[in-house]
Amino acid sequence: MTQEQDTRQRIVNSARDLIYSRSYADVGVAEICTRAAVKKGSFYHFFPSKQDLSLAVIDALRTGLEEQVLIPAFARDLPPLHRLERFIAILYEFQRDTAASNGHLLGCPFGNLALELATRDEVIRHKLAAVFAGIQARFEQALKEARTTGQIDGVDIPATAAAMLAYLEGILLLAKTANDPEVIRRLGPAFAQIRIDLPAS
Amino acid sequence: MTQEQDTRQRIVNSARDLIYSRSYADVGVAEICTRAAVKKGSFYHFFPSKQDLSLAVIDALRTGLEEQVLIPAFARDLPPLHRLERFIAILYEFQRDTAASNGHLLGCPFGNLALELATRDEVIRHKLAAVFAGIQARFEQALKEARTTGQIDGVDIPATAAAMLAYLEGILLLAKTANDPEVIRRLGPAFAQIRIDLPAS
Repeated sequence: MTQEQDTRQRIVNSARDLIYSRSYADVGVAEICTRAAVKKGSFYHFFPSKQDLSLAVIDALRTGLEEQVLIPAFARDLPPLHRLERFIAILYEFQRDTAASNGHLLGCPFGNLALELATRDEVIRHKLAAVFAGIQARFEQALKEARTTGQIDGVDIPATAAAMLAYLEGILLLAKTANDPEVIRRLGPAFAQIRIDLPAS
Repeated sequence: MTQEQDTRQRIVNSARDLIYSRSYADVGVAEICTRAAVKKGSFYHFFPSKQDLSLAVIDALRTGLEEQVLIPAFARDLPPLHRLERFIAILYEFQRDTAASNGHLLGCPFGNLALELATRDEVIRHKLAAVFAGIQARFEQALKEARTTGQIDGVDIPATAAAMLAYLEGILLLAKTANDPEVIRRLGPAFAQIRIDLPAS
């Protein structure tokens, strides 16, 4: 990594941590620069606008989700529906550990940004919609495999994957509101069981 | 209504509309005063802090939800599980109409505030948790009636009501991210069917 890449990475990581633990609006450039130990001029060299920074933060969060949650959860050592259950178990542990170190349960970083910014920034809204589509595609893949092996039948797979994503986001929203990771464990069992049926033919 | 009550009401309604269509952090006192046609001194007489204002805004939103959604949805002219379906149908119409007049689908005002503020304001977080508990209690009541009439059996009713609330919040989050009320119609059918079973005895 060049020094330039390293500086950029420090800015993105600092912004990611600050925004995730508070909110987009509550975090300013000065605070990000202090935490990243960079000068403001350097910040604006990499990120002319806060929107540019936000897109880079979302990319960094997406990479973190992929590596820490999606890849281990959806590894093929388990049958497909069990992977969905493992996904919730991993998220529970992640939220519990993050809450323990932060003092607050932080929820889904993409859901947080979506509800704060969706009415005000179309670029960020579309970026978040693409992240959600990527997560939903993992659920769809598991459901398709479950159909192939005869575990599910007559299910509208894209709609069911979207319903699972909705339920997941809702669980994390309620867990954040309660500041209690046990909400995830209590409500988790319904996640892999959600179904939206195909219309009767 | 006295003139004093009228002034207070105008401030709360203006703040409610501005915050709901954007975000808590994005709306300032000056803008609220302009919209409500009141002086800043008057604003601070009623609301010494933005937190005081937020609590009044949440009360106003809660009253609106009760009158426009919960009372008509859970009227006893339909069997209990059909009331849950009517609840989603009313929410769909409300979000569709609000999106048409605002240009953006606004989602759940309580979910919006929860994700923006839950890590930073314990008073507001607890207030929002109480609003969610009130909504969940309506679902519980319908589920209890459905159990009495033999429509459901072996279900953990408090957990199922919480799961329904989570799914509802998630649907509204995804609809807001997609800026598309049809998300509610597409995912709605699974809402009244979510179940968390009692542990096998």
